[in-house]
Order: sequence, then structure tokens, then C-alpha cells
Amino acid sequence: MIIVVSPEATPDDIDVIIKRIEETGRQAHLSVGQERTIIGVIGSDEPGLEDIFQALPRVESVHRVTRPYKLASREFHPADSVIDVGYGVKVGGTELAIMAGPCSIENEEHIFDSARAVKAAGANILRGGAFKPRTSPYTFRGLGEEGLRYLHAAGKAHGLPVITELMSVRDIDAVCQYADIIQIGARNMQNFILLDEVGRAKKPVMLKRGLSGQIEEWLLAAEYIMAQGNPNVILCERGIRTFETAYRNTFDVNAIPLVRELSHLPIIADPSHGTGKASLVTPVAMAAIAAGADGLMIEVHNNPDHALSDGAQSLTYERFASMMRSVGAVAAAVERTLPGVWAPASA
Amino acid sequence: MIIVVSPEATPDDIDVIIKRIEETGRQAHLSVGQERTIIGVIGSDEPGLEDIFQALPRVESVHRVTRPYKLASREFHPADSVIDVGYGVKVGGTELAIMAGPCSIENEEHIFDSARAVKAAGANILRGGAFKPRTSPYTFRGLGEEGLRYLHAAGKAHGLPVITELMSVRDIDAVCQYADIIQIGARNMQNFILLDEVGRAKKPVMLKRGLSGQIEEWLLAAEYIMAQGNPNVILCERGIRTFETAYRNTFDVNAIPLVRELSHLPIIADPSHGTGKASLVTPVAMAAIAAGADGLMIEVHNNPDHALSDGAQSLTYERFASMMRSVGAVAAAVERTLPGVWAPASA
Amino acid sequence: MIIVVSPEATPDDIDVIIKRIEETGRQAHLSVGQERTIIGVIGSDEPGLEDIFQALPRVESVHRVTRPYKLASREFHPADSVIDVGYGVKVGGTELAIMAGPCSIENEEHIFDSARAVKAAGANILRGGAFKPRTSPYTFRGLGEEGLRYLHAAGKAHGLPVITELMSVRDIDAVCQYADIIQIGARNMQNFILLDEVGRAKKPVMLKRGLSGQIEEWLLAAEYIMAQGNPNVILCERGIRTFETAYRNTFDVNAIPLVRELSHLPIIADPSHGTGKASLVTPVAMAAIAAGADGLMIEVHNNPDHALSDGAQSLTYERFASMMRSVGAVAAAVERTLPGVWAPASA
Amino acid sequence: MIIVVSPEATPDDIDVIIKRIEETGRQAHLSVGQERTIIGVIGSDEPGLEDIFQALPRVESVHRVTRPYKLASREFHPADSVIDVGYGVKVGGTELAIMAGPCSIENEEHIFDSARAVKAAGANILRGGAFKPRTSPYTFRGLGEEGLRYLHAAGKAHGLPVITELMSVRDIDAVCQYADIIQIGARNMQNFILLDEVGRAKKPVMLKRGLSGQIEEWLLAAEYIMAQGNPNVILCERGIRTFETAYRNTFDVNAIPLVRELSHLPIIADPSHGTGKASLVTPVAMAAIAAGADGLMIEVHNNPDHALSDGAQSLTYERFASMMRSVGAVAAAVERTLPGVWAPASA
Repeated sequence: MIIVVSPEATPDDIDVIIKRIEETGRQAHLSVGQERTIIGVIGSDEPGLEDIFQALPRVESVHRVTRPYKLASREFHPADSVIDVGYGVKVGGTELAIMAGPCSIENEEHIFDSARAVKAAGANILRGGAFKPRTSPYTFRGLGEEGLRYLHAAGKAHGLPVITELMSVRDIDAVCQYADIIQIGARNMQNFILLDEVGRAKKPVMLKRGLSGQIEEWLLAAEYIMAQGNPNVILCERGIRTFETAYRNTFDVNAIPLVRELSHLPIIADPSHGTGKASLVTPVAMAAIAAGADGLMIEVHNNPDHALSDGAQSLTYERFASMMRSVGAVAAAVERTLPGVWAPASA
Repeated sequence: MIIVVSPEATPDDIDVIIKRIEETGRQAHLSVGQERTIIGVIGSDEPGLEDIFQALPRVESVHRVTRPYKLASREFHPADSVIDVGYGVKVGGTELAIMAGPCSIENEEHIFDSARAVKAAGANILRGGAFKPRTSPYTFRGLGEEGLRYLHAAGKAHGLPVITELMSVRDIDAVCQYADIIQIGARNMQNFILLDEVGRAKKPVMLKRGLSGQIEEWLLAAEYIMAQGNPNVILCERGIRTFETAYRNTFDVNAIPLVRELSHLPIIADPSHGTGKASLVTPVAMAAIAAGADGLMIEVHNNPDHALSDGAQSLTYERFASMMRSVGAVAAAVERTLPGVWAPASA
Repeated sequence: MIIVVSPEATPDDIDVIIKRIEETGRQAHLSVGQERTIIGVIGSDEPGLEDIFQALPRVESVHRVTRPYKLASREFHPADSVIDVGYGVKVGGTELAIMAGPCSIENEEHIFDSARAVKAAGANILRGGAFKPRTSPYTFRGLGEEGLRYLHAAGKAHGLPVITELMSVRDIDAVCQYADIIQIGARNMQNFILLDEVGRAKKPVMLKRGLSGQIEEWLLAAEYIMAQGNPNVILCERGIRTFETAYRNTFDVNAIPLVRELSHLPIIADPSHGTGKASLVTPVAMAAIAAGADGLMIEVHNNPDHALSDGAQSLTYERFASMMRSVGAVAAAVERTLPGVWAPASA
Repeated sequence: MIIVVSPEATPDDIDVIIKRIEETGRQAHLSVGQERTIIGVIGSDEPGLEDIFQALPRVESVHRVTRPYKLASREFHPADSVIDVGYGVKVGGTELAIMAGPCSIENEEHIFDSARAVKAAGANILRGGAFKPRTSPYTFRGLGEEGLRYLHAAGKAHGLPVITELMSVRDIDAVCQYADIIQIGARNMQNFILLDEVGRAKKPVMLKRGLSGQIEEWLLAAEYIMAQGNPNVILCERGIRTFETAYRNTFDVNAIPLVRELSHLPIIADPSHGTGKASLVTPVAMAAIAAGADGLMIEVHNNPDHALSDGAQSLTYERFASMMRSVGAVAAAVERTLPGVWAPASA
């Protein structure tokens, strides 16, 4: 059971609630966010308990939640969450969010050119990595803060909110300054300290599923962020690690409808990492939209063979534009629209 | 390299070819099918070799194939294969193949009622299990030959070709007598003796991917069937086994475009087993069609809670009809049609 | 709950028992073996029920079994099973069973030489494949019945029981004639028809774990064999399929103590397939014995580079002899003995 | 190829080397550690190149390394590394390292009592978590710095070096102050920023394998630490995530001999996490030592049912003492010794 405390509650009000919880023989778990405080009640859910807590002063609402994650669960928040990421772009509504751009920000000109190209093809969010998680220490690890500045400027020039990966608490201020959406990468899905920190930030966060992250663990990772007071969490399915070696990862399409069943958070599909093979990106993007995804994240590069990272899975500008046309047809079939495309009121 | 021998070749002609292969220091692998003989040339592919073999009498064609599977590869047969399964139904063309029906054939009345219901909703192939692979020896294992007779009669009454699983060489004559398509189940993907036997039969075969079958192994299993002279192989992606416990299996949507890239054989999606959860079947079916699948196999039961097997993943008649409407919208977006639905000539 | 019926029971006696079960609102599942009949009682286990069934005529014993597998469970049979495989060799006691020999029987001389070499190094069972499951149809698939005769003769000449794989019901008579232990391979762990058939045979059966077989599924596969009246089942852990590509399979050492906890059946380790890499065979063999395995199955070849199959994981004669010395030291540490090695009475 | 620069080299010397590398058309990758500088040469390894670089001033040695990890590879450092972790304890030699203690440090008295008990049973390193990675934000996350102080004091009182997990760069100073070995947990195996930071610290680091970490990725993660100048890396196999649900993780025993083949770094086994089940800990610990592990990490708790975390896999004091006797017998069989146990000089 969780208790949502009203914003006007004082520390004394909260103490009263906690004492009452403890009198019933249960434990209280306090999550003090910047906007509201939530108290988790740990112990069995007996009938009548809800009424006891609801009657206390400054208790806004009381919710029974059977899942281990609470704030992220659909039981707690039945309607779909729609997250405003800036420049008028919303993630989670009828309009799809299309995040596109190069794996790494390579230089200023390159990211500006990428922004222009992906926008022209219909993307509404610009992606680009400034801090790159690389398996080997001997490979290009990104331009760092310099890259963030280029990304920000390119987004601004083209009216696109930007998303970039945060790998460490150390860089949180810089990333918050320049990015509209903070990406938490697959390898950091259970970097709990980092989750706590982005929970304290005000920014929208996109949380990628770990390579071997179970759905429940992933939603609990989202819960870490939300428990710190940041409700603006977007999930991203990017493929899991299986025994199959024909692709880099196995895109888990089941996850999309299941996450939508269990949670109110929007979910984005990343078929670039989910397949690791450019020839599979378009069909898997179409599949993800058909299955209910709220958008896509796609790696695009003008010259994939010369990309500083992830060339094998990057689409050229032309191929990305072609993908957008295919995705648009599927989107219409499921009553979603591409960014900026007029849709009939009935949709 | 493989050499296709012309149908009129005598054993002596074939001996000549084999001797020539051996003179070049290579080995010959003979596959004598009922309609044609194929000789695999094992050894390096030097320039000029093709011409030497092509010049021999009774050699129809010579193919360089870099994949370990030959007949199943798109290099060998660039056009999509379309397989006629009877009653005018074709698998692999513009029109989708929709296989539906109960997991097990429970009794005569039940399979007739199922046939009526799935046909009314738009299915064009009837499924039903007479021999059931069950994890425990203490559960219902199917009606056997009695079930086959009911299935055949129900298909005939409603003008639907029928598909059923063959588990053992022992039952091959009975299954060939009553079924239009022989299904090889996931647990038998590498039952090589069974593959050889269905290769010798004339019937279309649907080969499910094993629980941990890699794409290459799966296409090599198809090759076993084809090497015996049966080109009528349909593949079926039915979910793989991963670390994720939130669903029974993980539907591998990547497999669909990759198989289409590597092979000319049609590929069907089974979201019932691919998810194991009725609420996920419709979105994953839509995803599979968007990704390029040539059809679906769906478990349908009038009363899933009382099904003798696989109730949790079966759709009711109503839910199946609703799924068909959703799938129809996606099909149109990818220029495919539902069975019996008129499509414009341009599609 | 399961009811063991006494051997003298007539069909009428069994009918009486079944009616009594049905009167309590439960279902009866009959397993008629050649030596005894077992009746599974399907339904809840209320107190007092045991006494009701125990009081019926010709009921030998009544067992509560909470696991889905019954005859294979340690609850049903608390003591370790020891299986006599001929030539005085027992699997499951203090003395380890060491099965060794080539992957494939290549010719008569080769299997005789292998028998001599592995016996000299301390093996007490000879292995060799006559029917080989091969991923590709274009590779050597074994000598068939000719190979079985050579294997049998080689075993006889050196006083070694022999084990070989049965892939199909078709070959069961030949394999039973020539082999002392029938091996069911990993790809056939859930070939239920084959399990039924070897259950009807009198021979000891070694059941390998499937590439993605869960422990419970594996014990249920053993139950299939036992439910047909054949209690002589030996399990074999041979590695599972995981995301790791550095070895062919991942040897699951956890399975050894867990199977010993859940079941009374002996368990053999196959580090040759469990690693797929000759350099890892000895340390993993040592680990398996330390963890409680009842023996080993090892691929040995005089010239691994020229083996017709599985050369990369085969040990030379010398390396096998060296492995036996290392295994012997670990065996002594866990109070087990190598074959034919004198052990103090107290062990 | 990598070039080890001598400690006396000035920045100018290093520039000379880099220029020479670039003149050959290759790229230089500089790793400036506190004690030595290493230059990776990226590009093809032509004959003669070694001599060119070896001849430059201030070049200590030049190594060809075919693996993607360099400093961690056995090619670079053929002899086993032995790491001094304080109080006279060495990890990687003939004497095993036995790390034991509670999952979480629960209070001062508890960790002191644990230290006494594990030392009495033969452990030579004390473990205890102050910062706990927990799947849910609503569970006990450790005592933090207070816990570190208790752990340090308990180690000091009993003459045991202590190991504890570092989860974040934020806590590195505190952990370095109180711990003798810094543990990087499985979820942080690819937290590259954290790896860089512990690479800059002087402390020994124990790097756990990730839940889905491939061997090559794991050794590259070690390379991150070593590339910053910290050679004191200990690896720890703690089980991987597979399809098997009968245990929490699958202990990968193959990894032990393979890591020893590929790398010179010591490797510890953690059968507590590797199985997640107390009844399997002892046999898997024995297996790990038989396979060549350099030591064990074991969770021990006086009252596992009341442990604040990981109770199901913790051994009681008595059971741990019993495990040590069993492990001791296996250790002797592989010519290793338990801590503090006299071994004959010949071993």
C-alpha cells in the first residue's frame, strides 16, 4: 500500500502518519520528492487499513498496489502518462516520438547536418552520444562536454529537443544543462546511485532496459527514479541478450504490450541496438509500432561505414527517410501519427 | 557448390558426375529425392570449377552457395517460394495464411464448432493437435488417430486445409492421410530422422523453430527436409527461451526479416506460443505481420479456462475475430491481404 | 499421491482401486509397466486419504509426492539408485562410472584401439556413436548398424559395457541388441515417443539434458521412461545453451547437487560437450566429480584433428590418461574411487 | 601491439614514441598510469615493427597481443599474478583466499561476531556490504559509511583484510579509507566511469562478472582498470543469468579454467550468488576449487532466516565450518592449501 501525502503537509504531519503506520505493526518507507512525499507501507494489506490511513490529516490518497513497483504501476496511475520533453514535443500520446541521429556526436558540422537530415525525414527528437560506453578502453569514448554543446546547438537550430546518455553522476550537471532528455543506458539500468540522482533532477529520463534486465527489474529501476520525485520516465526496449548469434541483440517485442499492461509509462523501441544490423531496422521498427510502442530511437549516419561507432546498425539518411514512410503506414493502421502529420480528429 | 542433376539422369550419369568431382580432389554428397537428385560438392570453390561441372552431361545447373544450407538459401532460389496447401490456399504470397483452432482436438463436436468459428472470423487453415507433446507423462496427450479423423472431417466440411503435429515416424502414414500440412514441433526441430522422413513425404511441412534453435540450425533443419526432395517447407517462429520469466517464451521478431533475407521459404508467426499469454497475442500478431510474416498460427478456444491444454494463451472466438480486424489493418499497411479479402490489382 | 500396486494384482484388483479413487472425486492415472503398475492420484492430498488407499487389497504402498515428477523424485525413493549396466559395472555407487571413446565409431580397427586405450587409462564403459545427430544433412552421419556391431565386439573383447545413442524408434531393436546402455541425446530429451519406447525396453537408459532443458523438464522426461516400467535411468549433464560464445556450451555444475537433492537417479557429467574445448575438459571433469557427479562421459580420439566429428573437444589417449590421474585425486577427496581402484572399506 | 614506457620517461620522450608510431601509419593510444605509461599501437602488426619501437629511447618493452584486452592477457604477462591485499594475505598463490561474512553489515556487534566466526573456521578475508545494490528502492540499502567503520574495525580486531562493494564514484574516498579490497559488483561490471576511477586508486579491486557478461567483455572491463595504472585486479565468477529458474543464477564453472588460460589475473568463485541456494553452496565451492579457482567468497550469517538480505543463500557458522573441511580436502587434491594450513614444501 502507498500513501500520497498532500503538498502542504509539514514534517510534523508526516510524523503523525508514520507513527500511525507503525502502530498497526507495519513499517513506513518515506520517499521525499521535490513535489510530493510518498509513504510506502510495508506489511500485509488487511481490509479496513485503507480507511484508517485515508482518514489521517494531509493524506491525499491511499493506493493498494500488488506489484513490487508502485508509482510505475498502472494500478497506481491507470491513464497513460504523456511526457513533455520541450519544443512542444510530447512522448506517450497519439503522435509518435521519433528520436534519430548519429550514435556518437563526431564534430559540430556533422551533428548539425544530422539534425537537418533527420528533421527533414520527420524525426522530432535529436539523439547523439557525447559520453559513450565502450566495451574496450582503447576505442573512441565520445567528445564529452564539447559534444553536448554541439548537440544542444544543433537541436536549437532545428527546433528539436535533444537526448544524450548520462553515464556518471559526475556529469549530471553538464548533461542537465544541455539535454532535454537524459538517457540512462542499458549497462546502467541497475546503477542505483545514478537512478537516484536523475530522480532528483527535473528532466525527463529515458531508461533503457538492461541486456539481461527482466521486466520487473526494469520497472523497479523506473521506480527508483520516480521514488525520488521525478515522474517523467520514458522506457526504452533495445533488445536483450540471448543465445542467438545472428544478431547483436534480440529485440523483445513482447515487452511492449506487457509494459503497457503493467505500467502507465511511455515506451520507445530502439531497433538499431535491438538488431545491430541495418537491414533489419525498418521491419523491426514497423513491428514495434504495430505492437504499441510510443516511438522509436534510430541510429542514422550519413556514411555508416565511416561512423566512429555502431556503423553496422546505422541507416543512411535515404534509408531513414524510406523507413519513415514505411513506419507511417503502420502508424496509421494503429491510429498513431508521425510527428507533425495531420491526423483526423476521430483518431 | 551444388549440382542439380536433370530428372532423366541414369545412375550411370550420376556416377560420371561423382567421379569428375572426385578427380578434382573434392567430395560428393548425394541427395536422391523422388523428383530430382542434388549433388553437394564439398571442398573449396575455385574459379572455373563451375564451368567444368556445368559441361557434364545431365547436369541441369550448378550453384555457388556460401551458406551451410543450400536448397533453403535465397542464393539458390532468389524468388519467394509460394506453397500450395490445398483447397486453393497458398502460403507465401500476398494473401496471408491464417491458421487457427484449438491446441488439442478435444472431441468431434468441438473441432467442428472451432472450424466454423475460425472460418467465420477469416482463418483459411484449421489447426488442431491429435498427438500432443506434453512435459509431464501424466497429462492429456491427445486423441491420436481418432482426433485426426475429426480434424480432417471438420476441415472438409468447412473447406479448410488442416495442419496437425507429427511427433513420430510411427504415425507418419496416418498424419499424411488426414492432414494437408504436417507440423514439426519445436521440440523436434532437430529430430533428424523425423526430418528425413517428412522429406520423403510429398506433403507441405511446417517446421517450428526450436526453443533454443539458432537461425542457422533452423535453416539447416529445413535443408534436411529439402535434401530428401520435398521443397514444400514453411517455417514458423514460435518464440525462444530466454532469461525472461514474465512470458512463457520470447517471440523473436528479428527472425522474421532475417529469415526472409537468408531464405526463400515462407515464414509464419505463432504469437500464442511466442508469448504464452492471451493479452499479448493480438499486439504480437500485428507486429509479426508488420515485420513481414506470411501468416499466423493462433490458438483459439471457445472456453479457454476449460481447454485441455494451453488455455492461458488461447483466444476466445470473439477475441480472435477482434484480432483479425486489427491484423487486417496492419496487413493493408504492408500491402498484404487477409484471406478472401479482395485486394486491388496494384497491391 | 501415487499408489504402487503389488505384482500379483489382477486387472479386476486394479479396477477396484481406480473406482475407489474416483469415488473420492479424484482422477486416476494408470502406468502399466512390465513389472509393476503405478497409479497416479490426481487431485488434492487431504489427510486420511493415504490410509484409505493403503487399506485396499493389492496396494503395496502409497506415497505423497509434491513434485510433478513422482517415480524420479527422492521423496518417492530416498536412497540413491545404483544401476547395473553389465560386466559387473554399476553406475551410482562409490565407484565412478567412466565412459570414454570416440564421438563416432569410424571403423572396426579404430573402435578396438580406442577400447584398449581407454580401458588402459581406467575407463569402465566404452562409448561410440553409430547414429550421429548432425546439424547439417551434408556431414557424416555414422556407420549405423555396422558401427553397432563393431562397438559391441570391441566392448566384449575388452570386458567393457558399451553405450551408444538411439535417435529413432526405428533403430531400437538394433540398439538394444548391441548396446548395454541406450543414450538419449540432448536434442531428443523431449522426444516423448522415443522416451515411451525406451521405457518399454529393459535396458539402462542414459538421458542427456536438452540444450535448453530446465531441471524440472529433465526429471519429467526421466519420468516418461520410468512410468513405462523402466527404472534404470541415468541422467547426464552436458552443458546448456547460454549467451556466452567463448565455449560451445556452458557446463551447469549447479545441476549436479540439485539433481542429487531432488532425485535418486545417478548423474553423469559430460565435460566434452559441456565445454566443447579440449583444454577445459580436465578441469571441468574434476569440478563435476567434486560437486558429486557419479561419473564422466569423455570423448577420446587418437588423432583429434582427423576425427570425423567433434575433434575440437576430444582428448588424445595421453591427455585422457592424464585427466584420469587428476580426476582420481579429486575422487579420493570426496570418497569416491576410480573404476577398479581398491578403496578402503570405510570409504 | 603495446609499448611499455620506462618510468623515467619525460613527456617529450613519450611524444617521440607517439610520433614514430604515427609515422608508420598507425594510431597511438596513451594510458598514463601513476606508475607507468603504456602506449597501445592500433593498426596491423607487421614483421619488423617490434624492433623499430624497441629501439626508441625510454621504451622498456614491446608486446604483440592478439586479444582485444592487452594488460589483462596472459600473452602480455605469462606468470600468474599474485596480489597482496594486506595483513600478509595474498590472492593468487598456492594458498586459497577465503572471503566470508554477512551479505550486509547489520550492526557493529554483528560484524564483529561474524569476523570471529569466519576466522575461526579458516577464512582469511572478511566481507560485508555497506552500500547494497537492491532491485527495489523500498528495501534495506545498507548502513553506508557507518557500516564501513564497523567493518574496518572488525577486520582490524581479528587481523583480517576486508572487502566491500563500491557502487558509486561518490563513495570512493570512504571505501578506499576503510577497505583493503574494493569490490565492483556484477551490475557495475560495465560502469566504465567507475572502472576508470578504481583504476586510478592504488587499492586491489575485485571485479565481479556481470549477469550477462561475456568472458571477453569481462577481461576488457579489467583492462579499463589496468589501463589506468592499477594492476591489482582480482576477478570473481558469481553466476550468470540463463533460462534455468531452479536457481537464482547459474554458476559458470567453465569460466574458471578459460580465464586462467586467457589471463594472468587471479579468479575467485562466489557460489553463494552463483547458486542462490544454501544447499548448493558447498558442492559448488568444492567444484570451483577443483576447477582451479584461487579462492572463494561466501555469505555467512548466524541466523540466515533473519538476515537483512540474501538469507536464502547464506550459510550458518556451523555450515560454513563444515564447508571449509570439505573444501580443504579438494584443495589438497589440487595442491592448494587453506589459509594458515601448513603445506609440504613440495606442493
